[in-house]
Amino acid sequence: MSESKRFSGVLSPVVTPFGADLRPDASRLARHCRWLLSQNCGLAVFGTNSEANSLSVEEKIELLDALVEAGVDPARMMPGTGACALPDTVRLTAHAVKRGCAGTLMLPPFYYKDVSEEGLFRSYAEVIERVGDARLRIYLYHIPPIAQVPITFDLIERLIAAYPDTVVGIKDSSGDWSNTEGMLKRFPGFTVFAGSESFLLRTLRGGGAGCISATANINPAAIHRLYAEWQSPQAEALQADLDELRGVLQKYPMIPALKETVAHYSGDADWRRLRPPLVALSEAQRRDLLAALSGRGFAMPGLAALEEA
Amino acid sequence: MSESKRFSGVLSPVVTPFGADLRPDASRLARHCRWLLSQNCGLAVFGTNSEANSLSVEEKIELLDALVEAGVDPARMMPGTGACALPDTVRLTAHAVKRGCAGTLMLPPFYYKDVSEEGLFRSYAEVIERVGDARLRIYLYHIPPIAQVPITFDLIERLIAAYPDTVVGIKDSSGDWSNTEGMLKRFPGFTVFAGSESFLLRTLRGGGAGCISATANINPAAIHRLYAEWQSPQAEALQADLDELRGVLQKYPMIPALKETVAHYSGDADWRRLRPPLVALSEAQRRDLLAALSGRGFAMPGLAALEEA
Repeated sequence: MSESKRFSGVLSPVVTPFGADLRPDASRLARHCRWLLSQNCGLAVFGTNSEANSLSVEEKIELLDALVEAGVDPARMMPGTGACALPDTVRLTAHAVKRGCAGTLMLPPFYYKDVSEEGLFRSYAEVIERVGDARLRIYLYHIPPIAQVPITFDLIERLIAAYPDTVVGIKDSSGDWSNTEGMLKRFPGFTVFAGSESFLLRTLRGGGAGCISATANINPAAIHRLYAEWQSPQAEALQADLDELRGVLQKYPMIPALKETVAHYSGDADWRRLRPPLVALSEAQRRDLLAALSGRGFAMPGLAALEEA
Repeated sequence: MSESKRFSGVLSPVVTPFGADLRPDASRLARHCRWLLSQNCGLAVFGTNSEANSLSVEEKIELLDALVEAGVDPARMMPGTGACALPDTVRLTAHAVKRGCAGTLMLPPFYYKDVSEEGLFRSYAEVIERVGDARLRIYLYHIPPIAQVPITFDLIERLIAAYPDTVVGIKDSSGDWSNTEGMLKRFPGFTVFAGSESFLLRTLRGGGAGCISATANINPAAIHRLYAEWQSPQAEALQADLDELRGVLQKYPMIPALKETVAHYSGDADWRRLRPPLVALSEAQRRDLLAALSGRGFAMPGLAALEEA
């Protein structure tokens, strides 16, 4: 195995801001990335919660370039690069490697369902061969509730055997702890991220690397604190606090709820926009969410100042 | 409503040939299109069975240009243009209209699941507004088993009300006759295609326009015959024949089985290639399929001559 640095800790699938014309807004995105980095949170840009599959490859390339040019460190970035079409995945992945991203989070092709393990193996293998860059580090993205195309243990095993220096980890967004636990046991040395902070403590106790979680967009410091203090006596209490906040968010569609929260705490209402097919919260949902957050004394320290800068 | 011509009859989601480098092969595709047209079959290029979601937008634009330049009539083409990302759908749809395609078959954005009717309405509305061309004719593509994002009757109603000259029809690939029947009753004047010839006779009796079916790639003349003779005494027997042939194909993964059949009857083995995540039939499957077809006296008249031309 190569000695290149693996990701660990807490990463956020960074929400993507849109302008009035529904184009992605690179400068707002860079600001949010800087805030996340200031909270010890890595940048899984172009994830599910980034509405990345509602962006074209061109838009993602432009955003990535803009972030790097704005000084956001690519060594802290794990962009999502997996698309339905092989050439799209190859193009974005190659670009991410070229720009210095330390890893990519890669969905399987997700249009066709009930595809074979062999077909998925070949999909990843073709991407790796076509990108053809020793710096490439792939974190597989297992999110069966949305992609509907699972990454099985047998597939992981084949990929690690064929590409041990390239296929280095996974994000498990199955929502099924027994699946994450099974991965941790079967693949020691593989870098396993929980897909939500709900599983963070268990994942770390099982030898996992951390979590890549939607709510890290708004609550990164507290999630990072559990990551840093998981062996301390207060770990269970920290986990319980995280679960409580996540419980508040989960009463609403997650991506609109995250954007409403960022909009409110940054004082920048433009954050509320989503690209179809997603839609913003209703006024009633918005009021309820913000009241619940405020009632908990929730804050996003330093965010508003950054937004004004 | 405008008086522009609607599609009717039998259309094939044309299988896409690939070269050894897995790039789409425009000249083979043009030959297959010409054969299908010679069998009275329209061209739903870039459908599910075309592996269209394994192609980039650029590849689809290049293929469409190559087909038109090769003399394939765009008035007989209904390319699939719906993608996950709004700009991709807009770009390909606008290009199809510009090239003279008489309609487009449009998937909803299919990555995010459990999206709202409002979100899907806005998705289609944004495409229509951004393409901004009075010639645009959209046939909605309802294929919940694969896309996992259904097009509900309420959504159809809203789209027809808002864009009566643009949203003119649907392909129903639900595999659920009661759904097709419900559409035919609720939306008279809407152009409804069955997603398989299994439902062709019932669809025509219910006032539908025809079918867009995978097996039209290999059996177009027989399917067209039922379309032409549905009111004749032999209609039930023709439908039974179609069902029998489809039954043979359905024992295998459909897209590889279609490609094996085209490869065999054209004498051109290159047709066997698929793009990952799809894979070719095994040798045993291939032998079984070809034996079953041969046992039925199956033929694709004129195809081999075209392939040699």
